[in-house]
Amino acid sequence: MQSPAAIRVELGTRSYEIRVGAGNLSALGRWLEPLARGPRVALLTDPAVDALYGEAARASLASSGFSVATVIVPEGEEHKSLAGLARVYERLAEVGVERTSTLIALGGGVIGDLSGFAAATYLRGIDFVQVPTTLLAQVDSAIGGKTGVNLRVGKNLVGAVHQPRLVVADVDLLRSLPRRELVGGMAEVVKYGVILSPSLFAYLEENRDLLDALDRDALTYVVRECAALKAKVVAEDEHESGLRAILNFGHTLGHALEAATEYRSYVHGEAVAIGLAFAVGVSVRRHGFPPTLANRVIRLLESLGLPTCLPAEIRPEALVRAMATDKKKDQDRVKFIGVEDLGRTRFEVLSLGELEEALRAA
Amino acid sequence: MQSPAAIRVELGTRSYEIRVGAGNLSALGRWLEPLARGPRVALLTDPAVDALYGEAARASLASSGFSVATVIVPEGEEHKSLAGLARVYERLAEVGVERTSTLIALGGGVIGDLSGFAAATYLRGIDFVQVPTTLLAQVDSAIGGKTGVNLRVGKNLVGAVHQPRLVVADVDLLRSLPRRELVGGMAEVVKYGVILSPSLFAYLEENRDLLDALDRDALTYVVRECAALKAKVVAEDEHESGLRAILNFGHTLGHALEAATEYRSYVHGEAVAIGLAFAVGVSVRRHGFPPTLANRVIRLLESLGLPTCLPAEIRPEALVRAMATDKKKDQDRVKFIGVEDLGRTRFEVLSLGELEEALRAA
Repeated sequence: MQSPAAIRVELGTRSYEIRVGAGNLSALGRWLEPLARGPRVALLTDPAVDALYGEAARASLASSGFSVATVIVPEGEEHKSLAGLARVYERLAEVGVERTSTLIALGGGVIGDLSGFAAATYLRGIDFVQVPTTLLAQVDSAIGGKTGVNLRVGKNLVGAVHQPRLVVADVDLLRSLPRRELVGGMAEVVKYGVILSPSLFAYLEENRDLLDALDRDALTYVVRECAALKAKVVAEDEHESGLRAILNFGHTLGHALEAATEYRSYVHGEAVAIGLAFAVGVSVRRHGFPPTLANRVIRLLESLGLPTCLPAEIRPEALVRAMATDKKKDQDRVKFIGVEDLGRTRFEVLSLGELEEALRAA
Repeated sequence: MQSPAAIRVELGTRSYEIRVGAGNLSALGRWLEPLARGPRVALLTDPAVDALYGEAARASLASSGFSVATVIVPEGEEHKSLAGLARVYERLAEVGVERTSTLIALGGGVIGDLSGFAAATYLRGIDFVQVPTTLLAQVDSAIGGKTGVNLRVGKNLVGAVHQPRLVVADVDLLRSLPRRELVGGMAEVVKYGVILSPSLFAYLEENRDLLDALDRDALTYVVRECAALKAKVVAEDEHESGLRAILNFGHTLGHALEAATEYRSYVHGEAVAIGLAFAVGVSVRRHGFPPTLANRVIRLLESLGLPTCLPAEIRPEALVRAMATDKKKDQDRVKFIGVEDLGRTRFEVLSLGELEEALRAA
């Protein structure tokens, strides 16, 4: 399998390309050159990613004539905060970032979200590029322009929709990813298969071993498929006024589970995997999703090394409460995304009572 | 003179109206009602403005069925900061602001800029309304969607373009304005006359006494003319890629003078008045602006109580340095806006040497 052509996110004058492939990091400068409005680039990354890939990124940019300043953000979600943002702004001023400069996010979701929001707001908005280094970021968070930081009172409460000018996903970078992070990212990949692509779902079932062995062609195929699916959804509904909400499949419970366990017990993808298993279960009982398919989803998740069962020690009431107060909004009904078949989603509004009942049945 | 119909800022689906008149605050709720996406409103204001106009604003909103929470921001430009913004976000979460809520900025430029940026970024953007209470805000900062906060290293380095849904300017609110602030605001009014409207300029020359006496009809006429001129410029060039830059007439030196005196010696309008006098002087020498007109501009500024001379204790070199590093950008040339005639502007790029020479000649 060869690395295919770029995927285009169609958003009029703000359209951009996603380049997925092995070895892509070395082409970063070449691809940015025709897009950049000036020669100055700020590379935002964390110490671990910088140690692994900083030099390669800088070399590629320098060989295309860019002048690169590196801005290091400490690792960890706690730096995706207003305090972390303040430090980024100060560094951008120090290194002389101007309106024509480009900000490059080299890292996972935290770096991408924080850099994107800084780019959306510094000097009232400058260009930025995503170079995602985790599977989760390559298939999801680096695409679509959602950027933001957390407040003490809740996650992602502050943000902006600011599309990148370019996304460069190099699957070779996934080799250095901790196994748990890689496996977690596969939960999002399975999600795309269930809600949007029976063929991707079948591919995952058949090529689990290749993916497990980090086969470059298999990874390229999977990341590319997911990126193309997300690109299409974003192009149709940039501001999540409708369709884009299907991407939250499995996340209603996933987010609640992360919150109820104070973000300590699960990596995001693990919580999402449990959420996916729950969502297909509800879909069997309420939306006619075939039980054989539900079993295949759960078997696939488990064979990838992902959890699918709710932990016994968390009470359903706590999860219902967390679902009802997602995004700090108190609700007595929750919008739930189900599936009728592979690739066919359905929205349903559930009362908290119905949700609790479903959790007890799970 | 009757309060005329609303002024419209034409920006496609983001178009909005500016309502200028005496007693308009009492109609705030009525005008907001058809625009609001939900019943919840957060009123952002400072303690002094809240004491004067908070009750009237809340009463108007409540009588149209809105549920109002008040968020108080301490007075002073130092709160237009990331720390001030963090406190606003936390209060918005506390009072339960949702995606369908509307944020209302009741105050001067600091409240308007800070509230607008909070509205641009809280929950990735919510609706907001400007109720400017200073002359400067009514004729300038409340219109056009420029929002933002200061960093320690520079003013307005962080921001977003986020248009309000409605601007309500009540000239009666100007009665409580400290005289120095009112007079300062007149510098921006004179600016509009010089760069865009010979008829406004003539009106100011002829009705100085009425304005001095805070005559409601005269104030309404003047604020309305300025708002209409700004609305037209913003509609043509929302993101300041060209035309909108003419609004910086007089501000190149004005900003430098404020920075060189550490924002202590002049209110903004006073620094702008000195900048206007300088700009017409340069325009006489370089752009054929008639000396008689230049004298009329300077006489008008002085008769309104505004300064027009550079203070002797500030050295031209210090001002040139401040002009060259405006917005933290080191430049060896500065874009200068001049006038060839009343209502006819002209851009010129000046070297730092030419600027210093002009300052010595001023």
